Parts: sequence; C-alpha cells; structure tokens
Amino acid sequence: MGQNLALNIAEKGFPISVYNRSTSKVDETVVRAKKEGDLPLYGFHDPESFVKSIQKPRVIIMLVKAGSPVDQTIKTLSVYMEKGDCIIDGGNEWYENTERREKAMAELGLLYLGMGVSGGEEGARNGPSLMPGGSFEAFKFIEDILLKVAAQVPDSGPCVTYIGKGGSGNFVKMVHNGIEYEWNKGELLSFLVEITADIFGIKDDKGEGYLVDKVLDKTGMKGTGKWTVQQAADLSVAAPTIASSLDARFLSGLKDERVEAAKVFKTGGFGDILTDQVVDKKQLIDDVRKALYASKICSYAQGMNLIRAKSIEKGWDLKLGELARIWKGGCIIRAVFLDRIKKAYDRNPDLANLLVDPEFAKEIIERQSAWRRVVSLAINSGISTPGMSSSLAYFDTYRRGRLPANLVQAQRDYFGAHTYERVDMEGSFHTEWFKIARQLKN
Amino acid sequence: MGQNLALNIAEKGFPISVYNRSTSKVDETVVRAKKEGDLPLYGFHDPESFVKSIQKPRVIIMLVKAGSPVDQTIKTLSVYMEKGDCIIDGGNEWYENTERREKAMAELGLLYLGMGVSGGEEGARNGPSLMPGGSFEAFKFIEDILLKVAAQVPDSGPCVTYIGKGGSGNFVKMVHNGIEYEWNKGELLSFLVEITADIFGIKDDKGEGYLVDKVLDKTGMKGTGKWTVQQAADLSVAAPTIASSLDARFLSGLKDERVEAAKVFKTGGFGDILTDQVVDKKQLIDDVRKALYASKICSYAQGMNLIRAKSIEKGWDLKLGELARIWKGGCIIRAVFLDRIKKAYDRNPDLANLLVDPEFAKEIIERQSAWRRVVSLAINSGISTPGMSSSLAYFDTYRRGRLPANLVQAQRDYFGAHTYERVDMEGSFHTEWFKIARQLKN
Repeated sequence: MGQNLALNIAEKGFPISVYNRSTSKVDETVVRAKKEGDLPLYGFHDPESFVKSIQKPRVIIMLVKAGSPVDQTIKTLSVYMEKGDCIIDGGNEWYENTERREKAMAELGLLYLGMGVSGGEEGARNGPSLMPGGSFEAFKFIEDILLKVAAQVPDSGPCVTYIGKGGSGNFVKMVHNGIEYEWNKGELLSFLVEITADIFGIKDDKGEGYLVDKVLDKTGMKGTGKWTVQQAADLSVAAPTIASSLDARFLSGLKDERVEAAKVFKTGGFGDILTDQVVDKKQLIDDVRKALYASKICSYAQGMNLIRAKSIEKGWDLKLGELARIWKGGCIIRAVFLDRIKKAYDRNPDLANLLVDPEFAKEIIERQSAWRRVVSLAINSGISTPGMSSSLAYFDTYRRGRLPANLVQAQRDYFGAHTYERVDMEGSFHTEWFKIARQLKN
Repeated sequence: MGQNLALNIAEKGFPISVYNRSTSKVDETVVRAKKEGDLPLYGFHDPESFVKSIQKPRVIIMLVKAGSPVDQTIKTLSVYMEKGDCIIDGGNEWYENTERREKAMAELGLLYLGMGVSGGEEGARNGPSLMPGGSFEAFKFIEDILLKVAAQVPDSGPCVTYIGKGGSGNFVKMVHNGIEYEWNKGELLSFLVEITADIFGIKDDKGEGYLVDKVLDKTGMKGTGKWTVQQAADLSVAAPTIASSLDARFLSGLKDERVEAAKVFKTGGFGDILTDQVVDKKQLIDDVRKALYASKICSYAQGMNLIRAKSIEKGWDLKLGELARIWKGGCIIRAVFLDRIKKAYDRNPDLANLLVDPEFAKEIIERQSAWRRVVSLAINSGISTPGMSSSLAYFDTYRRGRLPANLVQAQRDYFGAHTYERVDMEGSFHTEWFKIARQLKN
C-alpha cells in the first residue's frame, strides 16, 4: 500500500523519496516508478539519507503495521528530523496511540497526523479516501498533495478533508471499516459483485467442481472491527449490525467446532422446515437486494451515531456529512448512497438517526416487507443472516415509541425500591407493589 | 446490600463490626440487628474504632460503588490496618482494578480479594452466590464464614468456591451479570415471574388503566454488561445474545428519539403484515417458553466460552462446572438449569460449546421449530426480539460446518493476493482469478 501511495503521489507531480527496511522493496518501487511513466520517485536504503533528502519542513508518510512497528519507525526516523518536520501515520492505528504520539512528538518540536487511508491497494494507487486527523498545521503542509492524490468524485470534489484534532482521523477510519465489514461483500459495491461473478465461474484445477467450494471458510480478524464494537459499548451506542459481522468472523474461525456441531444438529429436522417453503426465486433475489440495502442503512446509521457520540465526548466537532462525502471515492453505486447520507446531514445536521431522514425512511418503508420476508425465510430455512436480522431488530426497536423496558423498571421498583419515572407526569415514583398485590389477592 | 450481608453474617453466629460514612446507616443496621433476633452486630461511627474493634488478622468486606469510592475506602481503612489483615471488595468492580489493588495492598503486607456477590438485596440477606477471587490465603481466613453465609442448595452445597487468582472473581461475576441481563426477566426465574404477575394486576392510582403502562420504558446501565461485550470482542468470542441485551438498554434510553421514529414509521404498512397472521395463542405461549429456553442456552454458552477464553489468557484455571454450581443459589428453576450446565462440564470439561452437549443439544432440537416460529412471527409483526433472534443467528451460524466465509477469502485473494487455504489439502494457495476469468470470457 505504501508503494502504491508513493507512486500515486509521484504521478501527481510531487517528487517523493521512499524508504523501506527491506532494500529490495525500495528497488522494486523505483523500477515501477520508471515503468509507470518515469515518475519523480527516489529510493533510499538507509533512514538517514532518506530523511535528509526531503525538503524542509519535511513530511513523511508511514505505512507500517499498527502498534509497536509505528513506534519503532518513529524512533528510527525522528533522530534525523528537525523542528517543524512532520510524520503522518497512514495505518489503521488505535486512536489513542496517535494521541499519545502526537504529544510525544510535540515535545520534540515535531508535528504528527494520524491519517486513515481507505481503498486498499487499488485505491492507494489511483485515488484513496483520506482521513487526516491531528495537527492542523501539519495538514496544511500537505493539503495540496492530499487534494490531488485522493479519489476525485464529480460534483463532490476530492475525497479528503481535515477530520479534526487528536486521533479523530483514526477513529473515523475505524468506524468506517466497522461499517464496511459486512457491506463490502454486498451487491452495493459493484467491484466486488464483479469479482464475485468471476470467482463463481472458475473451476477447480486440482479436483472436481468449482474452486470457491474448495476455499476454506475461515476469515481473519483486524483490530478496527473489534475496536468499533468496544467503543460503541463504551459510548452507549447500539451497533448490532457491526457487532454481528464481527461475530460472524469469530464464528467462521471455529471451523473444527462447526463441523462437529453440524453433525450434532443434522438430526434437527430442518428437512421438514425446508420443504414447507415455496420460494419464488426471482422475487427472492429482488427481496435480498432490498433487505441488504435496508440493512446497510442501519449499519451506516449506527456508525454515524458512534462517530457523533465520540466527537461530543472528545470535542472533535466532526461533520458527519463531510465524512460521508470523503468516503465516496472508488465506486459509483456507493457514491450515490453516501451522497444521500451527506444530503441527509446537510438537511439536518442534528439528525438523530439516518433512519428517520425523510429520504431514507421512505426507502426503508418501501423495502421493509421484502426485508422481513428474507429474514423470515432464512430463519425458517435454518440459515443464519446475522447482519440482516440484527439490523431488522435494531430498526424494530428504534421505531417503537414504547418498549417493554417499563416492565423492567416496575420489577426493579418492586424488588429493590429503585423508583421509576412515569410517561404522563414528572417526578420519581415508588409503589408498594407487593403490599397492593397482597391486598388484591385477599 | 452491605447492611443485608452484615445481618446475614451476624445471623450465622459470626460477630461483626459495621461502619458507614453516614452514621444513620450504621445506627439503622444496629436497630435491625436487634429487631431481627439480637444478632451479634456492632456499629461504629469512625473508621479507626471500627478497624480496631476487629479481631486480628482482620477481614473487612467493603460494599461501595465501583471505581474511585473503592480506592477512597481502602485509603481510609488501610491506615489503621496491620500486616496480614485483609480487605474484600464485594462490589461489581472491573477486574483489572482489583488486580492493581491486590498488588498495591501486597506492598503494605495486606491481603486483598475481589468477591462477586450475586442475588441482590434479598440474596445478600438470605444467601447470595459468592465469587471470591484473589489471595487464596485471604480466602482461607474467611472460608468458614462464606460457606455459611452463601445460599445453600440441596445436593450441591453452598454457593461459593474459591474462583481463582487476581481479578477472576470479578471477571466471573461480570460475565454472570452479562448472561443474566436478558434472562433475569424471563419465566425461567420464578421469583420474577411471580412479581411480574403481581405488577400486571395493579391499577394506576393516579389515572385510568394499569400502572405498568404508565411506567417510563427507559432502563439504566451498569458497567458489567458493557465490559462483558468489550471483553468478548477482545478475546474473539462471539457473544451476540449478551450484546443484544446491552443494545436493548441503549435503545430504551433513547425514548424521545423512539417516539419520533414511531411517527415516521407508522406509515410502514405493518397493518397489512399483521392481519396476515393467524396466531394460536395457546401454542404461541408454549412456543415463547421454548424459544426463551433455547436462547438462554445460547446466552450461557457464550458466557461460559468467554470465561474460558479469559481463564486461558490469564492462566486462572477456572472450573466452568464449579461456577455453574455456585450460581445456583436462590431459585429452584434456575438451579435445575445450572445443574445441567454443571453436569455438561462434568461429563466433558473440554466441551467446546454448551450447545453440543448431548443433553442441551437434545433440548434445542426439540425446541427449534418453536424458536423459529416465534422469531419469524415477531419479524412479520414488526416486533423486535433481539435476544431471541440474535441467539438463533448464533445457533444457525455455529451449527454450520460450512459458512460463506470461503467467498470472502476468495475475494481477498482476487483483489489483494492474500492467498487462501483449501478444505481438501494442506497449504496456502493463490489463484490468478482475474486472468482465468478473462480467458473464460474470451
């Protein structure tokens, strides 16, 4: 990713020095720069000559693994850096690490940015979505470069904006990843639909049948999904759609256990259930698309509310609509969807939840029958659709003016005299439930 | 709760000194001790005389709010304590705080325990479930007392055991609370069913109709549910049932937003959906009971796996069956269920998941049709049942030998050359998906 981002920057006409601990990586990048149009990219094999080659005030973008490799790289480079120079971390770093480093760097007179970079290898090369947070002064140094390097979306501009102070760039990228956990795989990202069609058509060259059926169903884990779920709990924000996709990854990892469980629950009588169902395949496909879309709205609603809650806690003053705008890069279908989110916040910056934006509300209402049909069919067929069903539970809970939590409160007042509030008058109330109930029985 | 626990201890014949910053609380306890049978309980109005009144080695049980009040209390008391004395924190404390304090106390020559206390006010007075963790030496000091004070369950003994080192007592109590978040309200805890029936019968004395309908549907938050969800994410353990009950609390808190959302989604055409459904009320009640029971198994399965994962990480060597045993106190129906869990781990201490224990598996298989009917009906009626539906998604994911994660892995190999594993042979593979797909198209 670092290589691709460097080539992207050089291609936009900004001379760039590159360095990697592995010298072959450096040489490879130099060769690519030559091949891809004699780009102004210069390779260095040691940190000192690398740093010294950069024009002051120096700006260095790091793309290394989050955590201690970042600290190690900062240590290596900062020795040769001078007051006013700047380091930018482009990795998926925990936001508090960035805040810690920004403070430590400030003591050395150095500036620091934590910049979320979204779009994968392909985006890094041809236009990523960039989420820089931290020193505004440092952002200003490289604003020109970032504006050109970022994905360019017609009518909406480059996919970059100064996110806010401290670790806000990392935090926003983290939630962005959390939201995308599930939907990346959906039909809403055309690139992935395309490659999925390709994948489905490829036969196994090592045996019979299709190759995809031979691929092990065990996915890896990244920190951002985990952190998103933990932050949501910390901030009292319900994020069940995001949590369910994380759980799906956890459970996919338990391959051996699942194989055993499948044997135990083979006798579960699913055959009976399945034969009950008459499915119109064409309608089902249409229903699934609608269910996916409605669930996706829930996922973004949760992510946006999480970002807002954090922004309030930290005083970051983040602009939700602007975030939707810079996430647009890369894919046309996604861009339309994100544009709708941006417009929702333009219409009402204090929008409590994306679900109740008039446009989204209309779209959900149109799709909810299909959504219910799909989840219901899945349940009756014994197929888990954790993302869709948790989104629907979120929707059905959120759209209830009245939830059964009143019973919980009454119970707590019954056995612990915790008192309760009323829906029809102010104040705190306590009832002698037990005494009254006993009188009623006599 | 402190008052009740003190009275419980005194009632078992152990003389006890009590102290509270508020002297009226102390006096109230003394009066109750007299009234409830001249119990050997002595009140003190200042920390020094309180500490000095206790026989050496002193053991002091604190029941104060978690967090800094605990530190404050330790500071106040430890001044007067001597080497070999012991402090026990009976609150719902974050386990790492207990580990920090245990270390700090050890430097002063004092012992420390973090002890989970379950059962509420009523349990504290008449027999709680006790989960002491930390210094084994300190546990031994008061083992006699705890064995008598804890709930006594026939054929299974007192609801207390030494949990393990460090903060393990608090951790186990935390997960216990997480599991109980949802099920506390269920028909499986007879006490709560009883009081629920009472509550439903009481008319509003301030207006028309039933009082429960006037109670505000907004529940509070405690730390333990949040921590459980965060720890599950940390340890890569799927805990969707527990997470969904936490989310239900978060959403119940957004009363004003929900009232607005209800207006927006009134036009959602639920009338149509509802009239479709023909519901046999008697069967529905039976189905709900079965669905609740199956979901409860999932909740315990998740909680137990979380505890095991933490036990492995920390080297606590916790005994899952023993934990189920000490949680039995208080309720007969719950005791039967927990006894089944204990037996499951007795049969197989390495049981991967409670779901696949032969007994539980059989119970789930018998109930799964009902479970699916209930969740499906709720979805089609627009009523959220987050606990039941997330449990079902968990079950349906876990019981699949094969999940669609293979597609995700194929996609990642397609666009990022991440390589993949195969189901039928060892090794790491990479396919030129794009190249092959292009050849196929030509």
